Parts: sequence; structure tokens; C-alpha cells
Amino acid sequence: MSEPLNTPDAERRASIRELLPSAHRPILLAVAGDSGSGKTTYTDGIRRLLGSDVVASISLDGYHKEDRAQRRLSGRLPLDPKANHLRQARADLNALRAGQTVDIPVYDHVSGRFAEPRRVEPAPVIVVEGLHALYPELQKLMDFTLYVDSDREVKWRWKFQRDVHVRGYRPDEVKRDMQRREVAYKRWIDFQKTHADVIVKIHESELASLAVEEYEGRLPDDCHHMEVIVTPTAVPLPALYLPVDLNGMTKQDALPFMLANVPSSYWGRPVNVVHVDGVIPGAALQQLENEIMSYTGLPAVESLGQPSVGPASTLRFTQLLVAWPALGRISGLLREWATAPRSAGQPS
Amino acid sequence: MSEPLNTPDAERRASIRELLPSAHRPILLAVAGDSGSGKTTYTDGIRRLLGSDVVASISLDGYHKEDRAQRRLSGRLPLDPKANHLRQARADLNALRAGQTVDIPVYDHVSGRFAEPRRVEPAPVIVVEGLHALYPELQKLMDFTLYVDSDREVKWRWKFQRDVHVRGYRPDEVKRDMQRREVAYKRWIDFQKTHADVIVKIHESELASLAVEEYEGRLPDDCHHMEVIVTPTAVPLPALYLPVDLNGMTKQDALPFMLANVPSSYWGRPVNVVHVDGVIPGAALQQLENEIMSYTGLPAVESLGQPSVGPASTLRFTQLLVAWPALGRISGLLREWATAPRSAGQPS
Repeated sequence: MSEPLNTPDAERRASIRELLPSAHRPILLAVAGDSGSGKTTYTDGIRRLLGSDVVASISLDGYHKEDRAQRRLSGRLPLDPKANHLRQARADLNALRAGQTVDIPVYDHVSGRFAEPRRVEPAPVIVVEGLHALYPELQKLMDFTLYVDSDREVKWRWKFQRDVHVRGYRPDEVKRDMQRREVAYKRWIDFQKTHADVIVKIHESELASLAVEEYEGRLPDDCHHMEVIVTPTAVPLPALYLPVDLNGMTKQDALPFMLANVPSSYWGRPVNVVHVDGVIPGAALQQLENEIMSYTGLPAVESLGQPSVGPASTLRFTQLLVAWPALGRISGLLREWATAPRSAGQPS
Repeated sequence: MSEPLNTPDAERRASIRELLPSAHRPILLAVAGDSGSGKTTYTDGIRRLLGSDVVASISLDGYHKEDRAQRRLSGRLPLDPKANHLRQARADLNALRAGQTVDIPVYDHVSGRFAEPRRVEPAPVIVVEGLHALYPELQKLMDFTLYVDSDREVKWRWKFQRDVHVRGYRPDEVKRDMQRREVAYKRWIDFQKTHADVIVKIHESELASLAVEEYEGRLPDDCHHMEVIVTPTAVPLPALYLPVDLNGMTKQDALPFMLANVPSSYWGRPVNVVHVDGVIPGAALQQLENEIMSYTGLPAVESLGQPSVGPASTLRFTQLLVAWPALGRISGLLREWATAPRSAGQPS
């Protein structure tokens, strides 16, 4: 694997999956954010674009100290870092990072109880998802960090949908819980975004503000205004073309959309802010996804020309926007390792 | 020319220039808007994309009743429709439309005097540019209408630049003139936009509002926030892809841009509002321009990969956005004529 990489030309063309065998250790990606903010969407996106055979996912919810019944008695919230075994989480992630197989504790959101631990192998890429995934204890272990920062109104709507309709809680119970959680969220969780590599902000659609008189756009319910805040990278990545069909302007049933990229500061550091709103046609997303998969080394998927293939278009689009810098980081590490000898004492 | 057009397949592929010989009469495009609003930019864009050999341009300024010296004495402004020979303009355009050669009066903005009339042949496409180009007298003759609607601040800046630095007026003279003109503009010119097929609004850049904290984008001075308001067409046009490189998000020196399309109402009728702001790379614009030229039937221009080829990128981009529905209208007429026999009495 390492020989053809010696020429710069071959090095440029080697895909991430081709480079994985030369990895020195598993690569850890962290996804933090509130419960119900959509963390799993981004974990799923990275897994789909890299290939699920090389990605393991871990939820930190298994490290809660109390189950639902215990929390009802104690009144403590899992957002409090002290209500979690973060030291154990760090030890487990450290072991995985060193190439060891680890039994990871599991919390079952349906039953509200802890389930049997799950055996996790040191996959080439491990995505760690949780309320405290960017806490100082864990952040040092992470190669790439993402923070999902949903607006209050979006979060409430999603949380209701999931906790009431999927997880079977009572509406008034969820509402009271949400109000308490908001205060705890601001205290213990929110600050983690100040140092994430990428931050996704999710707002309700704001396309109506771009009309000249009455806004006449029709949007699927699950289209949002997404801001993806990206820390620029030193590793050059290839161009990533989204084909935007401008001829929508001459059509009577034009799909509304907005796309922007603006350099900005964010908590004192330079970032780019990518704005997405409205409908990005499925065929264009599939073409973009194929471009990304040729970078990771997965075979392209045929575009069926369907208006939307896979999840709703803004969410699917931001999956790609978030995955791209993550893949860039992975590629950067792999290329570094491919040319550097493994030091003694490192796991093989 | 007409035979291969009988099959729908060939008809779809025939370019505008290939269809021109079957035209029944010259096609008239009108560009209205204030003096110094940038009308000529859009006339130039249409000429470049169709080929200057098939486009004639006419300025209605030649139909002013008074030259500069006479206006100083009378105190009248050329914005007043009564200060223009609009009936003569209508007669001349009617003659051109009927296939006759016409001597068009000419006003010389440098000397402030009328010059020798210019002989204009009935070219396949005639672009008519002027303060009153969408006035009721003239509008009936027009096959496509464009209104250029610059913001006050943009207009002042451009007008100063042109009148002081190019046309040699004194700054205080231009300022006094502008203040008087604003009132007259609102009374006599502005309303024409309510019924134009396409309206271009030109504002100062608003990208800073898309930053999360401090805006750090660097823009060339001549980048603007452009709104192109397009009346949807019944004639289907092919897809028109602008390749947007999303990898800008990972770069430290990302070029700021914004692009949107939003269905809206405008003076009570349905339109699409295309927003453009910031820098669209020259190579992407060249690719778009080549797509348009394959529709009109001009040979593609090699993209040199330069950051900006031709005029500043937002202006050049809106040249393309404005030209596209105009070309659609031209194509629609030509395809209609190509399948319909010329009625008796029509010019050949």
C-alpha cells in the first residue's frame, strides 16, 4: 500500500479507504450537542460516506450514572457532567484508540434502563456521540469535533416528536422536562461549541425574508435554515462542485433555495459560515455525494433523478457539508501516517 | 433551415443563431432605467452572448428634444417624457421592426450636443436602451423588457464616477443635478419596473449580515448584492448549471458569496427573485457562459482559470442571469415562427 504513495501523483489519487491500512491507530470523531438536536443525523452521514464497514459508533449515554427511575428520585439531570462516568468514558476511548476491544455501557432510551454492554472493536474510524463529547476530559482524544446547535424552537419540535411519538413519554412530562433541561443545557453543554472544529446551527427556514413582496415558496416541513461553521484547514482538499441549476428562475414552480459562504470570526477565531436554506434537488446532492465517495473510495451511486433521494434535502446537504471537513481531517492524518514510520510501542 | 426542425428532436437541438433565418421580423428587446444605472452593461451582455453580428443597439437619448445648453436655459429634465420625441421613436422602431433601415438620432454625452444620425439596419435582434423604453408608446413594440433599478447610493456613486471622471462635469453640478433628477425619476421613470419581464435591483453588498460574529470577507469594490426578478416563462428552457465549489468552506482565504432563488409576488404577479452577492469565480462564470453560448450557437470560450475573466463577477453574473430569460423569449418566438408560415404583407 505504501509504495505507490511515494510519488506525489499517486498520493493525490489514493482514496481514504485505500489509505486506511497504513493508519497508526483508530481515528476518533466527536459529535456533541443537546439530546434531540440531530447528532445522529451527522454520525449517520459520516458512516454512509466512509462506508459502515470501517466506522464504529459509540453513544456516551451509556455512561450516565443513573437510569430514568433513579433520576426521578434524585432529581438530577444527565446534562450535569457529574451525573456521568466521564473518567470511565475517557479510559474506554483511550483503550479503543490504542487498538483494544472494549465493552461499552449502553443506555436504552425506550426502556429508560441500562442494557447489556456492547463489545466495540477498534474500527478504523470511531464516532463518539454524546452530551459531553467535547468536554475537556474527552476532547484531547478526539481527532475531529462537531457541535450540533439547534435553535430552541426546532429542538422543541424535534424533541416532542421523538420523546412523545417514538419513545412514548407524556407531552406534559416532556414539556416540564424541556424547561428544566434548558437551564442545565446553558450551564453545562452549550459552551462546548466555542472550540469545535465544525458547528451546525439549525434554524427555521428564513427564505421568506428574501422575497420582494409576498413569499410564494412552498417548502417541505423538514427544510431548515442551516449554518455550518467550519474551521479552515491547513490540508488542501479537492474542489467539491455542487451543480446549481439557475434555470429555476424561469420556472413557475421554482424550488426555493439559498446558499452562501462567508468568512467570519467565531469566538475569536477565523471560520467560514456556510448558509443553506430550502430545497437542494436530490440529483444535485447525489452528484455531490458521488464526488465525496470518490474521495473516500466508495463506488458511486446512480442518481435516479428523483426530487429527493434519502433524507430531507437541507439535512442531507448538511450531512455532506459536515462530513467533508471531517474526511479532510481523516485524510490528512492518514497521509501523514503513510509517510511516517510507526514509532515503537504504538499498537500495530 | 425549416426542414430539420420538423422533428421534435432536431427542434430541441437547433440553436438560436441557426433559427434566426426563419425569423418573420427583427426581435426588439427594451432596457429601461435611470441614467447611470448600468443599462449598457446588460445590453453588452446580450450582444456578447448572442454574437454582435446579429444584434443592433439603439439609445433613446437621441430622441431628447433639447441638448445640454438648451436644457440649461429651459430648466427641463430629459426624464420628463414630454421632453422627448417618443412618437418619433415609436415610428422609427416600428419601421425597424417592419424590416426597414432607419436613421436614428444620436445624442453625444461628451459634447452635450446632438450628433449626426446613425443609419441602423434591421438586425435580427435590436436592443433599445433608454429612460422611457418601457413607456406605453414603446412597450407594445417590445418582445422582451428589462428594467434596471439601482439603489440610490449605488447610483450616486456610479453617476459621480461617470459624469465627473468620464464626461467631465463638475462635482457640485452633478450633485445638484442628481437631487433634482431624483424627484423627476420617481415621478416619470420608476413606475416602468412594475410591468417589466425582468427587473435588476442593485444594492451595496449585504454579505456582512451573514457572518456569525465579525465579517471577515474581502470583496472587490465593484461587487454588489444583485436581485434579478424574473417573470416565469411558458417556454421550457434547458437546465443551466453553475458549478459552485463548496470546498471554499475549508479554505483560509474563502471568497464570500451568496446565491438564492425565491418565488415571490411583485406588483401582484408571480416572479422568481434570484439573489447574488459577492464573488462568483471567473472559471465558473466562463463555464456558465459557454453553456449559454451553446444554446445561442456561438463557439465556447476556453476558461483560463483566471479568478475573474471580463467585468467584475457579480455584474458579469447578472449579465448572464438577465440574458437567459431574454434568450428564452427570442428562442420561443423563433421556434413559433419556424413552424408557422409567414402571413401575407409581412416583411420578408
